[in-house]
Order: sequence, then structure tokens, then C-alpha cells
Amino acid sequence: MSIRVPFAEMKETAKKAFLNMGLTEEQAETCATVHTESSADGVESHGMNRIPRFARYVQRGWVNIKGTPQLVGARGAAENYDGQRGIGITNALFSAARATELAKAHGIGLVAIRNTTHWMRGGTYAWKMAEAGFIGICWINTESCMPLWGSDVKSVGNNPFCIAIPREDGEIVVDMAMSQYAYGKLGVYRLAGKQLPYPGGFDKNGNLTSDPAAIEETMRVLPAGYWKGSSLAIALDLAAAAISGGFCGIDMDEEKKGSCTGCCQIYIAIDPYLFGEKGKTQEMFNRRVAAADAAHPIDPSHPVRCPGENTVERRRKSHSEGVVVDEAIWAQIKALAAGNMETEDIASH
Amino acid sequence: MSIRVPFAEMKETAKKAFLNMGLTEEQAETCATVHTESSADGVESHGMNRIPRFARYVQRGWVNIKGTPQLVGARGAAENYDGQRGIGITNALFSAARATELAKAHGIGLVAIRNTTHWMRGGTYAWKMAEAGFIGICWINTESCMPLWGSDVKSVGNNPFCIAIPREDGEIVVDMAMSQYAYGKLGVYRLAGKQLPYPGGFDKNGNLTSDPAAIEETMRVLPAGYWKGSSLAIALDLAAAAISGGFCGIDMDEEKKGSCTGCCQIYIAIDPYLFGEKGKTQEMFNRRVAAADAAHPIDPSHPVRCPGENTVERRRKSHSEGVVVDEAIWAQIKALAAGNMETEDIASH
Repeated sequence: MSIRVPFAEMKETAKKAFLNMGLTEEQAETCATVHTESSADGVESHGMNRIPRFARYVQRGWVNIKGTPQLVGARGAAENYDGQRGIGITNALFSAARATELAKAHGIGLVAIRNTTHWMRGGTYAWKMAEAGFIGICWINTESCMPLWGSDVKSVGNNPFCIAIPREDGEIVVDMAMSQYAYGKLGVYRLAGKQLPYPGGFDKNGNLTSDPAAIEETMRVLPAGYWKGSSLAIALDLAAAAISGGFCGIDMDEEKKGSCTGCCQIYIAIDPYLFGEKGKTQEMFNRRVAAADAAHPIDPSHPVRCPGENTVERRRKSHSEGVVVDEAIWAQIKALAAGNMETEDIASH
Repeated sequence: MSIRVPFAEMKETAKKAFLNMGLTEEQAETCATVHTESSADGVESHGMNRIPRFARYVQRGWVNIKGTPQLVGARGAAENYDGQRGIGITNALFSAARATELAKAHGIGLVAIRNTTHWMRGGTYAWKMAEAGFIGICWINTESCMPLWGSDVKSVGNNPFCIAIPREDGEIVVDMAMSQYAYGKLGVYRLAGKQLPYPGGFDKNGNLTSDPAAIEETMRVLPAGYWKGSSLAIALDLAAAAISGGFCGIDMDEEKKGSCTGCCQIYIAIDPYLFGEKGKTQEMFNRRVAAADAAHPIDPSHPVRCPGENTVERRRKSHSEGVVVDEAIWAQIKALAAGNMETEDIASH
């Protein structure tokens, strides 16, 4: 069962939980804000739902809360950092902000960070770059969690890729894992007793299926676009590991700490007004988005929306009516906030 | 029926065709090489098959064979060009080469070209950047040819996105349109009397189907990854048009010249050894690719291959045994080479 909790209450509760894990005031404030915003935007899987697992990772020392980005090298429009396995969120926010600074100076900016940890919701950093006025591109490599196309065992990460457009009337943001559905989403459908809207993986007989439990059993999630998502996943892995000088997917597999521990991330910010007027560019954004939204809908009650537009709607509703959270998850967050640091993993894979 | 034609003979024949269209010796040599290489790599749709349509576009003045990239602006690691609706291939090769030059100086290089024409096979330019030793990323916006997710009419381009990794033992290259299947591929399956291996669009009753003819009828091709390919397509359109200061997809729709006439392209080159040793990086590439290729296959007779590996195989075979081409298409190329410039569009959409 889901409930709605006021944004401020959720954030303050989460903050207490983070303080109890040993984070500094500033770290706790930042992490609580980002996790609450993710839930408020409708990405519960990487919002409230992920806090208990983060707590366990801190307890195990897999996330080093004293780690901060250390400059490894700088060249032209590019910088490389070692994340010291610090908090994924603070490392990622730092990297995204540096990329926009480099873009201010060079038109385009690149930050490659290695040896960092799970950034939670990747879209957060694309949104941040867009809010700062830049086209933001970012991606991450992860341990293997999806079969490569043609394989029946997990052999590549689902390596999310994000791109954001700084439209002032509402950012357009794509945040896509290379699997058609996240494991978290499979769990949501299974618990609700529902089938997936489209096939999301293979059952134990090797048939494409929309049954979430059958896919959880085989772990044969379907790459988005079949061979396309699989191909892009391996290329993003190679590129991230090369540019940042860090782990590729199979290095993470070997270390067996899961969930992006030791991963690499790439942040690219591009000034959209490099060669054009801001007003004219914004006018084009609005004109193009309006035309997309006016495309004839299959179902008139579901008009077409550009990516990010529904998120802004959900965000508004979360601020006015409270943020949706699963009751059991919320009980865990409150327990952490009260100093009970033992939590069970109920939020699925 | 397909036949095999020796690479050199194919290239020389194509070159004569291009010379007959009025291209200079150098332009004809370049275009003949690129189209023949595309066919040799197995991408016939944008190799030989596209030459007759290119001839018609030149005749109509939609491709301006005297156009060349004109510098609009340069800032830091970024440059912007106007392509003067010149030949898509030569404009794109120029842009990719400039991006690598900028990357040499700044670590990362960006070229945005507007007002250009169809680049044929997008992967060509990603391969070129990788062959020059860089991680290459490029994309293009096109006129609307695919329904946005939730719409039943074409409302966004299939905006191909490419990324290439400069592995010295064989480049890893992804070249993916945002539709699950290209229209050209639908035609190939229809002519062969085959169903698509996976659903590729919607029939007139709005059901997902693997029947290529039913999809050609509705033009409701499926975005790769359903909402994911649709979302990425609109973001890539906005980004390309903004950075290059050129047309977005609906501007091309309005001009009604089709096939990327007036489009924008983005080229990003990144030095993969910015912060790491070349030898160590190449070793990582080989290790990661070997692990991917060793992933347990569904069918032992179809081992997993990273994107680009099969292309290199096909390329070798084309050089030793001849390049595959459809007989009717080959007759058209020979007619063009003989000075008969009237061709019919048989290569499908």
C-alpha cells in the first residue's frame, strides 16, 4: 500500500536517517533532498526505496562516506576524477556541476569519474545540467545484470544513458536504462499482480513473456530494442571505463559488491547557445515540443507527452498533495531516522 | 536476386555514376568509396541501394553538389558549420575529421553542422572517428518518419545515434536508428516473403505485428524500446537543432523534401587516452569484448558478438568474394554509369 507524505516531512525524516548513517549535515541534507525529489518525480525505486540499501552499503564499507572526488587529471575541456567510492549522489552532483563549468569555458565540457558508487537516479544529473542551462548527457556503467543479445545469462550492465534539454518552459529529460524494464519495475508489477504492458524478458523456456515473476526467475531481462539496447550497453561500458580509466562491467562483477560499486560515469555538458540566440533556440524548443504533444494520439485520453513533461506534472502534485511512498518502505525510513539501522531488503533487486 | 560484384568493379562503376551526376573527380571518388564500403559492410540499404535516389536528389537540386561546409562559428572545443545542402557524405566526413582535430587539442571535440543532407550510413563517421583513434559519437535529425509513443501518425524522425570505440583489434561500433526496423529492412523482408523476427510496428487495427507489409501500410513503425526510442528521438532532434542552429524535424516536414534534406548533425570525438595509458586501455577493451563474446549463448551456433565484430567479418568476405548487391539495383548503377540518368525508386522507402 502506498501513502502520501508531505515533501518537507519526508525530506526531514530521510535526513535524520542519513545523519544516523554517519553522514555530515551537508551530505545528509543533499542526499535527503535528492532521494525525496526522486520519489516526488515518480522514481520511487531510486528515491525512498533505495535508502535502506544505501544504509547497508555504508555499514559494509562499500560506500565510503569520507570519500570525495580527487582530481586525477585535466586537459582542455576535460577533467578526470577518482570518486574514492564516496557517496554516489554527492560525487555525481560534483561531476555534473564541473561539466557545466567546463562547458562555460570551452563550449563543451567533459567530466569522467571513476571508482564511484551508485548515483541512484541518473536523470537527476541530466536535470541539473539542464537547469543550469546546458544540454546534459551522462551515463554510467554497472555490473552485469542483463543478458547480451544472443546470450541467456547476465553479461552486461543495463548502463543507463541520460540526455536533457534546457527548455525554460520545462526541461525535456530522457533517463533510460538499456533494459526494457528495471528489476524494480518487475517487482512493482509482480506485487500488484499485473502483467507488464509489453514483453520484458524471457521465461525459463526461452519465450518472450510479459509475466514479471517469470523474468525475475530467469534474470533474462530484455534489452530495450532487443539487439540495440544490448549493443549500446556494451559500447557505453567500454567508453566510460576508457575515458575515466576505471572499472569496466566485468571488473565490478569480479569484485561482487553489486549495485555500481566502483563504477565509472561520464558527464558531458554542451552550451546550447554556442552559435545561436537564446530566444530563438527556446522558441524552437517550444515549437518542436508543442508539435510533438499535438501529434494525433492513439487514445484521446492519453495525449502524447515529451519525456520530462509528465515528470514535472507529478512533481507539482507531490509538492501539493504529498509524495507517494510504499508504507513498508516508509516504516523502514522512519526506523532508520529513529536510529534502528537494521533493515531488510524489501524493495526488490 | 542478389549477386556478388568485386569491390573494385563496384567502386569504379559507382564512381562513373557519380561523375555523370556532375560530381568532381574527388567527390565521386569519395562517394563511390563510402557507398561501396557500406554495401561491403552489409549495409546495402545505404550503400548501392541509395545511389539512384541520390541521383534524383541532385537532379532536383535538393543536394547542392557545389556546397561545402562554411564555418559559422568556433568557440573553445566546438565548431559550427553550414553545410550549404552539399553532399551529405563529404560534409559528414569533413565534420567527423574536424571533431577529431578539436579533440586532439581539447580532449573532446564537438562539430555541429546544419543545413546538410543525408549522410547515408551514419556508422561511417563513427567508424572514421574510431579509426582515427577516438571514441566517436554522432547523430542526425530527420524529418518525421515514426510515430511518437502514444501517437498513431509519424511525428518524429528515427534520428540515428552512433557510438564507436577505437579498439585496435576491431572497432566496436553501434549505429542505431530509433525505430526498431528501418523502412528499407521492412522492404527486404516483404520482398523475401518473410515475417520480421520480432514485432516491428502496428497494423491497421493497432495491433503489434511482425508482418512487414502491414507496417509499411500504416507507417506505424515501432520505436526501439517502445517509449525509450521515441523519447531519445525527440531529445536528439532538439539537441541537434539547438547546437547547430538549424532545422528541427518539423522544419524538414514543412519543406517536404524528405530524406534529411536540410538536417543537422552532431559529431563528438573524445580522446580515450586522455587520462590513461593506451596499452592498458586497449587491454581493457580486449578483455571486456572477449568476456562479452564468451557469454553463454542461447544457441551455440550463434555465439555472442559485440557490435561491429560481425561487420568486420562481412567486410573481409566482401573483399575476398565480392560485394553483395541486388541485381535490379546493380542494373540501375550500371545505367547511371553509362549516362542513363533516369532511375525508378525500387529500393523502397
